[in-house]
Amino acid sequence: MRMYDIIEKKKHGEELTRDEIFDLINSYTNGKIPDYQMSALLMAIYFKGMSDRETFELTEAMMLSGDTVDLSAFEDRSVDKHSTGGVGDKTTLVVAPLVAASGGIVAKMTGRGLGHTGGTVDKLESFPGFSSSLSPAEFVDQVKRTSIAVIGQSANLAPADKMLYALRDVTATVDSIPLISSSIMSKKLAAGTKSIVLDVKCGRGSFMKTPKEARLLAETMVKIGNAHQRRTAAVITNMDIPLGHAIGNSLEVCEAIEVLRGKGPDDLRTVALTLASIMVSFSCKISREEAEKRVSDALFCGKAFEKFCEWISAQGGDTRYAEDTSLFGAAKHIYDITAEKDGYILSCDAEKIGIAAMILGAGRTSKDAEIDHQAGIILLKKTSDFVKRGDTVARLYTNDENAVNDAKAKVISAIEFTDIEVAKPTLIHEIII
Amino acid sequence: MRMYDIIEKKKHGEELTRDEIFDLINSYTNGKIPDYQMSALLMAIYFKGMSDRETFELTEAMMLSGDTVDLSAFEDRSVDKHSTGGVGDKTTLVVAPLVAASGGIVAKMTGRGLGHTGGTVDKLESFPGFSSSLSPAEFVDQVKRTSIAVIGQSANLAPADKMLYALRDVTATVDSIPLISSSIMSKKLAAGTKSIVLDVKCGRGSFMKTPKEARLLAETMVKIGNAHQRRTAAVITNMDIPLGHAIGNSLEVCEAIEVLRGKGPDDLRTVALTLASIMVSFSCKISREEAEKRVSDALFCGKAFEKFCEWISAQGGDTRYAEDTSLFGAAKHIYDITAEKDGYILSCDAEKIGIAAMILGAGRTSKDAEIDHQAGIILLKKTSDFVKRGDTVARLYTNDENAVNDAKAKVISAIEFTDIEVAKPTLIHEIII
Repeated sequence: MRMYDIIEKKKHGEELTRDEIFDLINSYTNGKIPDYQMSALLMAIYFKGMSDRETFELTEAMMLSGDTVDLSAFEDRSVDKHSTGGVGDKTTLVVAPLVAASGGIVAKMTGRGLGHTGGTVDKLESFPGFSSSLSPAEFVDQVKRTSIAVIGQSANLAPADKMLYALRDVTATVDSIPLISSSIMSKKLAAGTKSIVLDVKCGRGSFMKTPKEARLLAETMVKIGNAHQRRTAAVITNMDIPLGHAIGNSLEVCEAIEVLRGKGPDDLRTVALTLASIMVSFSCKISREEAEKRVSDALFCGKAFEKFCEWISAQGGDTRYAEDTSLFGAAKHIYDITAEKDGYILSCDAEKIGIAAMILGAGRTSKDAEIDHQAGIILLKKTSDFVKRGDTVARLYTNDENAVNDAKAKVISAIEFTDIEVAKPTLIHEIII
Repeated sequence: MRMYDIIEKKKHGEELTRDEIFDLINSYTNGKIPDYQMSALLMAIYFKGMSDRETFELTEAMMLSGDTVDLSAFEDRSVDKHSTGGVGDKTTLVVAPLVAASGGIVAKMTGRGLGHTGGTVDKLESFPGFSSSLSPAEFVDQVKRTSIAVIGQSANLAPADKMLYALRDVTATVDSIPLISSSIMSKKLAAGTKSIVLDVKCGRGSFMKTPKEARLLAETMVKIGNAHQRRTAAVITNMDIPLGHAIGNSLEVCEAIEVLRGKGPDDLRTVALTLASIMVSFSCKISREEAEKRVSDALFCGKAFEKFCEWISAQGGDTRYAEDTSLFGAAKHIYDITAEKDGYILSCDAEKIGIAAMILGAGRTSKDAEIDHQAGIILLKKTSDFVKRGDTVARLYTNDENAVNDAKAKVISAIEFTDIEVAKPTLIHEIII
C-alpha cells in the first residue's frame, strides 16, 4: 500500500478496500504516515465521501487501534447513551439513573466538554468527592452492584480517532458525515456496550444545523452500530435553543435533580423519557410501550432520584448536595437581563448562549483550562414565551467580574423578540431505530 | 489570517483575497504554516479550483518568493520557451539556436529531467565540457555576445513553488490546472524574459491527456503571462507518441543536429519551426509570416547550425561532437525489436517508451540519480508507418545489460500493430496567442 495511491483513489471517488483502510489507520497510528498525507486524504474524503462499507471498516479500524472494554459480564444487557453535544444538555444526569432505576444496565464512558458544549464529567464533578476515574475492574464492579456507572474515557480508547480528530480540527475537515460518524462510533464500540442510543442534536447550538444533515448522521451511526452487532437507535432533538433553562455545571445538576424529583422543565423531561425508554427496551428486551411505562413510573415514584443518589455516592460524591442543592452555592456575581418591552421570544440562539456561558467560566476555551462549576446562565424565558417589559429573561452567574460585559452582550444578541405570537419549536424531530 | 479559515473558505469554493494568498505563500515559505494544513488546502483547491485572479496572484506571490532575473539590458526583446515535458522532446536544442540565428534574443533557464521525460540540461551535458552553471552576470554577458544562453534554474528561483511542488508530489495534488499553471509561470516570470512561448504537450506521454485539458492549461498560462505584462503564446502539440525518433540524451542531441542541418524527422522540424517563428515574431516585433520566412531561411541556409555551435562553444562544450556526432559513441549493448508480421503501427505509447528509456539509463528515477548519456531508444517506425515482418521497429541502447529485459518488454507493450491503414496523428492541435 502506498499512501499516495490511496489519496489518488479517494480523490477520484473510488472505494478503498478493507486492507487499505486498516493499513491506513494502523500506519498512521504508528507514525508511518505523515500528517500532510493524511490531511490531504481527509480533504478528499470531505469532498468524495465514503460508502457505508468504507465507513463501517474505518470505524472498526479506529475501534481496534486501542483498548476495548469487556462488558461480557452483563451479557447483552449493557447500554450506553451518547449525545453529539449541545448547550444545556444535562440529559445523561437524568437518563442514566432513570434507566438503571427501570431495570436497565448503564455502563457509560464519557468525555469532557470543550468549547461551548459542556461535558457530563465536568457536571458530575460539581459534587465534592465525585470521581470519574475508575479502573476497568472497579467500573464493572460498580455496574454489577448498582446497575450504573459513568466514567471518563480511558486514555487508550480509539487512539487513532484521537490523532485523526486533532488533525481534522486544524485542517477544516471535521464536517464530514463519514468522518464524524466513524469518530463517534469507534469510541462507542470500543466502550463495549451491547446497545447504544444516540441523541443527535440538530440546530444552531450543535454541529448539524439542519434536520436533513442530522438525519444523515443519525442514519449512518445507526447503520454502523448495527453492522457491528450493537442494537443502535438515534433520537434527533432540537438544539436551536438550549435544552431546559440551566446552562453551566452545578446549575445543570440542580435542574437535572428537579426533573428527577418529578418537576423541572418539560423539554428536558420529554427528551430524557424518550431516550430512557428506548434504552430500557434494549437493555431489558421489552417493548417500547412497556419500557415507557417503566421509566415514567421510576421517575414519578422517586426511584430514579434514589438511584441517582446511590450512583453519586458509589462514585464518592457527597449526596447531601443532591438532597439540598443550595449547598452548591451561588456564584459571587449575578446579573439579570430584562425585557425592554412586552412581546414574545422569537429565538434564543443556543450557540451564542453556550459561548456566553463559556465566557462566564462554565466551559473550557482550551483542553487544559479550569472550569468554574458555579458559572453559567439560567434562561427564565425561551422561544415562544410571552414576556412583559422589565421581566427577567436571563440570569448570569460568574465568579469572574471581568467576564460579565462580554457575556451580557452575547446573551442580548442571542435573544430576539417579536410582537407576534410564536409557535413552540419542535423538540423531537425523529426517532431512527 | 488564520490558515484554518483559508482552508474552510476554499473548501466552500469561495475566492481568497490577494492578502490571503500573499500571506499564505510567505508564511508557508517561512515555515509558519505546517505541511498538513497546506496539503489540506491544496486538496481543496484541486476540488474547488481558483479564479483567474486568484491564479494570477498565486503565481505572483510564488514568483516574488525568491530571486528574479534582471534582463532589462535586452529591453523587451528577451524570449524564453518552455515545454510542459514530453518524451523525445529535444525541441529546445533546435529552437533556441534557430531563434538566435533569426535575430531573436534567447535567455533561457531550464530544469533537469525527472521521471520519464528528459531535461534539456541533461541533453546539453552530452557535450564534454558544457556548463549550465553561469552566474547571472555571465548569463547576461553571453546573451549580449551570442544572443543565446541556456542555463540551469537558479536555486532560489520561486522557492515557494519548489516547496509546494514537493508537497503536491506526495499528496496527489499535482493535477490541478491553477496549481500547474501557477507553478510553471511563477518560474518563467521570475526568469525575467519579456516574452514566453509555451509548448503544451498533450497525450499519453504527457501530463495533459486530452486536447481539452491541454487547452485549459494553455489558456490559463497565457492569461497569467499577459496579466504580468509578458507576451505569451502556447502551442499544443501531440505527445501520444514521442517527438522525432530518438529518446535519450546524446541520441536526441544527434537528432536535433540533423534537423539543424536541414534533415531529420518532419514532426520535430515542424514543431521547432512553429515555436521558433512565434518567438522571433515576439522578440523582433515582426509579423508571424515574416518570422516564419526568417526561421525557415536560418534553418536551411545553415545559420541555425552555426549558431548552435557558437552557443555550445560559448558554454564550454566541445563542438567537434556537433561536427561529427559519431564522437558521442554508442552504448555497449544494442538490441533490436523487430516486427513479427507485416502491418501498420497503430500506436506507440509515449509514456511506456519514456519509461523504457529511463530503465535503460536515460532518465532519473530519483532526484540525485546519475544518468547514462548514451542510453536510450531509436524508434525506427512510428504510428501510421507500414512495417514488413522482420523490420527493426525500435533499437535499444544501454550500458547496463541488466536493464535490457525490462526495457524490451516495456517497448513491446508500447507498440501496437494492425492490418488496416492508419492515419498520421495530428501534430499541432492548436496555437493560442
